[in-house]
Parts: sequence; structure tokens; C-alpha cells
Amino acid sequence: MINTNLVTNLSTQLKDNHVDALMVAPGSDLIFLIGHSPYLCERFQALVVTANEELFYICNRLSEAEVLEMMNGNKVYFWMDSDGFTGTVLQAFKEHNLIGKRIAVNGTVRAFNLVKLLDVINFVPVNGKDYIELTRIIKTPEELEHLRISSSIVDKAFEDIIHFIQPGLSEKDIKDELKRLCLKYGADQFTGGIVAINANAANPHYFGDNAIIGQHAVVEMDFGCTYKGMYSDITRTVIVGKATDKEKEIYSLVLQANLIAEKAAVNGAWIPDVDRAARKVIENAGYGKQFNHRLGHGIGYANHEAPYLHADYKMHLKPGMAFSCEPGIYLQDEFGIRIEDIVIINEKGETEILNKCTKELIEI
Amino acid sequence: MINTNLVTNLSTQLKDNHVDALMVAPGSDLIFLIGHSPYLCERFQALVVTANEELFYICNRLSEAEVLEMMNGNKVYFWMDSDGFTGTVLQAFKEHNLIGKRIAVNGTVRAFNLVKLLDVINFVPVNGKDYIELTRIIKTPEELEHLRISSSIVDKAFEDIIHFIQPGLSEKDIKDELKRLCLKYGADQFTGGIVAINANAANPHYFGDNAIIGQHAVVEMDFGCTYKGMYSDITRTVIVGKATDKEKEIYSLVLQANLIAEKAAVNGAWIPDVDRAARKVIENAGYGKQFNHRLGHGIGYANHEAPYLHADYKMHLKPGMAFSCEPGIYLQDEFGIRIEDIVIINEKGETEILNKCTKELIEI
Repeated sequence: MINTNLVTNLSTQLKDNHVDALMVAPGSDLIFLIGHSPYLCERFQALVVTANEELFYICNRLSEAEVLEMMNGNKVYFWMDSDGFTGTVLQAFKEHNLIGKRIAVNGTVRAFNLVKLLDVINFVPVNGKDYIELTRIIKTPEELEHLRISSSIVDKAFEDIIHFIQPGLSEKDIKDELKRLCLKYGADQFTGGIVAINANAANPHYFGDNAIIGQHAVVEMDFGCTYKGMYSDITRTVIVGKATDKEKEIYSLVLQANLIAEKAAVNGAWIPDVDRAARKVIENAGYGKQFNHRLGHGIGYANHEAPYLHADYKMHLKPGMAFSCEPGIYLQDEFGIRIEDIVIINEKGETEILNKCTKELIEI
Repeated sequence: MINTNLVTNLSTQLKDNHVDALMVAPGSDLIFLIGHSPYLCERFQALVVTANEELFYICNRLSEAEVLEMMNGNKVYFWMDSDGFTGTVLQAFKEHNLIGKRIAVNGTVRAFNLVKLLDVINFVPVNGKDYIELTRIIKTPEELEHLRISSSIVDKAFEDIIHFIQPGLSEKDIKDELKRLCLKYGADQFTGGIVAINANAANPHYFGDNAIIGQHAVVEMDFGCTYKGMYSDITRTVIVGKATDKEKEIYSLVLQANLIAEKAAVNGAWIPDVDRAARKVIENAGYGKQFNHRLGHGIGYANHEAPYLHADYKMHLKPGMAFSCEPGIYLQDEFGIRIEDIVIINEKGETEILNKCTKELIEI
């Protein structure tokens, strides 16, 4: 169903930014705006929202029935594989007086399709990734409640997984079990995760899965699920065997950074200051270079969305915002430790840490 | 490992097209070129291949160790979340004399990142989706052999699934079983699929999964796997209960179109003529509008890659090409039928249909 309030909100943002229309390709933005997102292959398709609150869709003929139903009476322009899509977009832009105008693209439009359009149609492309994310940066009370439930599901999965982990299991075994647990505890879907052992955990975006836990191992688990469309995202790192002094030192630093940042993340806080609070702890201990990513990212209908918590994201925290707090230290060829919670500024302006499962160092 | 032959081949193509460099974001193109593809989130990253056979990579600092290893001594430029990526790209482009030049993007670069770059750096964007696909359009004998094995796996899965399908099962149940069977028969991975019942099958890209098979149902299954990285892709449509006269009529037409197109797909055939051969059968029977997509797509390291079989893809079939042949008829609110095989022109210039499982109408 088309969310007309959001369309109005979005159109206002377009006007404020002197943008005439926004192209939205399939993904979480489309689900947010109209409740459905068709399958995206290499073929061009997009919802176009104009600054005048007009909506139309452009897609391949093969999606005809699905898109007509989704668009509920709004205009749909179709193209055939044999003709290509640029002529159809040109026609649609002409009919909506968008030739020569400033047209934004959301986060999922592909660059090669944009270039094909620019070869044929006169318009000025604009980065529009933020507009929709900004319309949903303040969560409703219902969305906050779904975020809480989503986080409680991964908490339960974590509490169970520590009884499951043992030498001989692979990263994949643990990931499969986390998936099973999230679904068991009521997730709509398991949205994937990273399970990284020892040196693999030194890569924040590691995505292998076949290393095996030995008698001693650092096991980093970063995983999430959705509940009524709302994402959770948690990271906990546990030690199989006895933690070494270095592991204890690094764990303690990361935990301290996590706690200090969560304390700094109050209603009204300046986002760069929150990032700074965590980073300072780690820098002071001499590991600044080994904390090589932002403190966190917003979360909601997408796993990563506004606000982004880093030194250059100049915004104050406000009630309704939801974001991760996930400092980490990554020691190449050794191990990595990250501790991540989801944090919200709730309706009352209080900071709520949604993940309640322990962050104390666990030795298994 | 960097495939230097491919880099040379690619650079030649860039020169031939008067393009100075190609940006390749993660995905099958990157696996094909350098054997590995880091995880892609919203952060910009790309391999850049220049027309002079230079290679460099630009990525976020968080991927440092992984990318340094992957790039094996070639230059890597890093950016931090707090700084953004455009300054780093500008620096890299300056050092490689790419300012003001024609820079292509592959299929996975995102449009909003391209726009951010265009705001800061002077260059002419070019659609480069085809260049890498064209370097791999002719498969090696070894790749053809892997394609054969990949197709034999889905054949076996299909032969088993017809004994599994029965009233009361959901689309998801069937998809899960197909996955299990593909893995059982040796697939690296199940690459997903569509299981669509009755009216759901009238949407060629349906991706729901909760409809339940009744006493009578049209069950369309479109699924695939990889074997040593090579994709398979098959569609079969079966009937639960006795097929109606209309189902028989449509099935017979689609099968005829499939067989005629496969017969037309000989070494040297003009691709638009092959598409035409199938389309003519269906048009003559009055269902031209209900065959609303191209005849097929190339297949290899990606599920969809060059060549694309439609009226506007002007190329002759050659030894080493691999592609799908998948006519369909989609009757809204009723049902859809599609029959898909993978076809190769082998080393000897013979047409080989890789899927050997029956295409006769099956009533379960």
C-alpha cells in the first residue's frame, strides 16, 4: 500500500533540496514507501516520486501484473527486452516535465543504468540516497517496539549459542545454529551474519565460514534478524578456552569504549562527539589505527541507514533515532574483538540499550 | 589470484572502445578478474583497471587486510568513514592520469556513489557493464565442462522433486527440498529459485513462497546452483492432478517454442533470429503478448550475463557460448508455463542442450 504521508514528506524534502524527482529502485526504500519491492535483476526499474507528489513506475513488461497491483492506479510505464528501457524513461520524463531537471537516485539504482539514461536524456543526476533514509530516521513508537522485540530475539539466540559453541565446530555450524535460534524465537527472517574465528575476526567484514574452532579460539559473532520488518544487529565476542592477557586487555578496552559511547549517546548529543567518545578510549590505549571504522549506523527497515555515527555526520541525536554502537579493535593475523548493541533514543528522550545480554567476557 | 590474461583482454577492449579505465565493484566480475570479491555494503569500493593494464583498488580502511592480500602487491587506496571516499578516489585518479578521462562502470557500481564522484571529480562516465561480460562470453573447455556438471545437478534434483511434490506442500517446502537435493548432488551452492503455483506462475519473477498446492495445481520451478563457480538454471512446469485442456494447449505451445529455438540455436546463428523462432510459434497461436520477456540470457560466472537473447542483441552464436532458452506464456490470474534449458555451442561447434531431464508434460 502506498504510504501517502511518506510520499508527502519525501516530496517536501525534494523541494527543500531543489530536486525535481527521485528514482527509487527495489530494496528497503521501496518497501518503506509502498510496502512491496519487486525482484531486481539487471533490468532497469524504478519508482519515480516527483516534488509535486506524483508517483509513477518504470519497469520491464515481465513485471506487469505485479507492478500494476503494487502501484494501485498510479501510472506505470513498461519496456520490452527487445527495445531497451531508455526510450520508455524518456517518454515518462517528458510526460512529467522532467527533461533538463534535477533527478535524484536512491541507494539501489545501478550506475550503468544511470549512465545509459544520461546518454539519451538530458537531466542532472543528484545523490538522493539520504532523502528516504531521512524520512524514516525518526521511528514511530510502534517501530521502536518492533526494534525492541527484534533485539530481544538476537539476545536470546546469543544466550543459547554460548552453550552450543565448542571445539570442532566450524564458523558455518555456528551461523546455522544462530539462524535456527533466531527463527525459533520469532524472527521473520535471519538476515545473516559474520562468525569469525581468531585472525578471521581481524577483518570486520569477513565472510568466509569454514574455519574450525580449536581448543583455544576468539569467536566473534555479528548477526541479526528482522521482526515485522525491523532489523536487529548484535556483535558479541567470546573466548573458547582461557583468555590470554592480550585478549583480556583488548576485550576490556572495547567494552569500555562501547559503554562510554552508550553513555554519551543521550538525546541531543552531537553525533561526532559520540563517535569521539569511543574512539578516544581506544586511541589513548594506542589502538586507534586498529579501530578502522565508524562507531555505528542507523537501523530500521534496513540494516544500515541514517544516522551514521562518525566524525563527519553532523547531526544531533533525537527521540526516535535507532543506531548501533559497535567499537572494535582488529589485530591483523591475531584476532579481532567487536561489541555491538542497538541503541535508541526513546519517545521520552531516554537512551535505551536494546541488547540486554551480557557483555562481560565469556570463556567457554 | 589476478588473472593477467583477462586483464590484458579487458584493457584491449577498453582501448578499442576509447575508454581509459573501468571501475569494477564487488560481484561476479571481480571474482572472475581476481578470484575474490569482498563484501559490498553501501561504502564505495572498486577495482580500477586502466587501458594501460594498470590495476588499483579503492576501499574503506576496514577492508585493508583482505584487499591487500587480494591485490597481491598492486596499489590500494584507503579511505576512512570519517573522511568519505571522494577525496581518495580523486587522489588515485590524479596519480593514474585519469582526470577528464572516459571512465566506465561495471554492473555493480551504485549510481549514488557515481554521482558523488561526478560532483567532485572531472571525468566522463561510460556504461562498462558489457566489457567484462564480453571477455568471458566464450567459455573455455573446462568452464563448459563445469556448466555441464552444474546442469546435470539440477536435472537430478528435478527428477527427484517430482516424487516429492504433493497436495498440502507450500512453495517454500518445494524450494527447500530443491536446495537440499542440489547440495546432495554436489552443488557448491544453491543459487535460489522460483517455485510458483497457479496464478503466481503468471509472474515470471514471482518471489513469494507461501502458497499451498491443492488437489489441482500448475507448479512452475525455476532454480539453479553453481558447480566450481559455474551456474545452472532450469525451469520445468508440472501439473498436480489432471492437466486441463488449456494447460495442455499452453504447455504444448511453450514446449514447441523451446524446441524450435534450440534447433535454431546453431553455431553462427543470428541471435535475433533465434529469439524470433520461439516468439513466432507463440505469436501465431495468439499469445505473443503473454510471452513478455527475452528468450534467454548468457550464463557462466553469473546467472545472467552476455549474450542476451532478444531482438536487439545483434551478434552471432559462436563456439564457447552458453545461454538459456526459456520461452514462457503467462496468463494473468490463471497460470504460467515456462520451459528453460541451458544450451551451449561446444568446442566442436555443435549445439548441446545441457539439461537432459524430460520436458514432456508431467501429471503428478
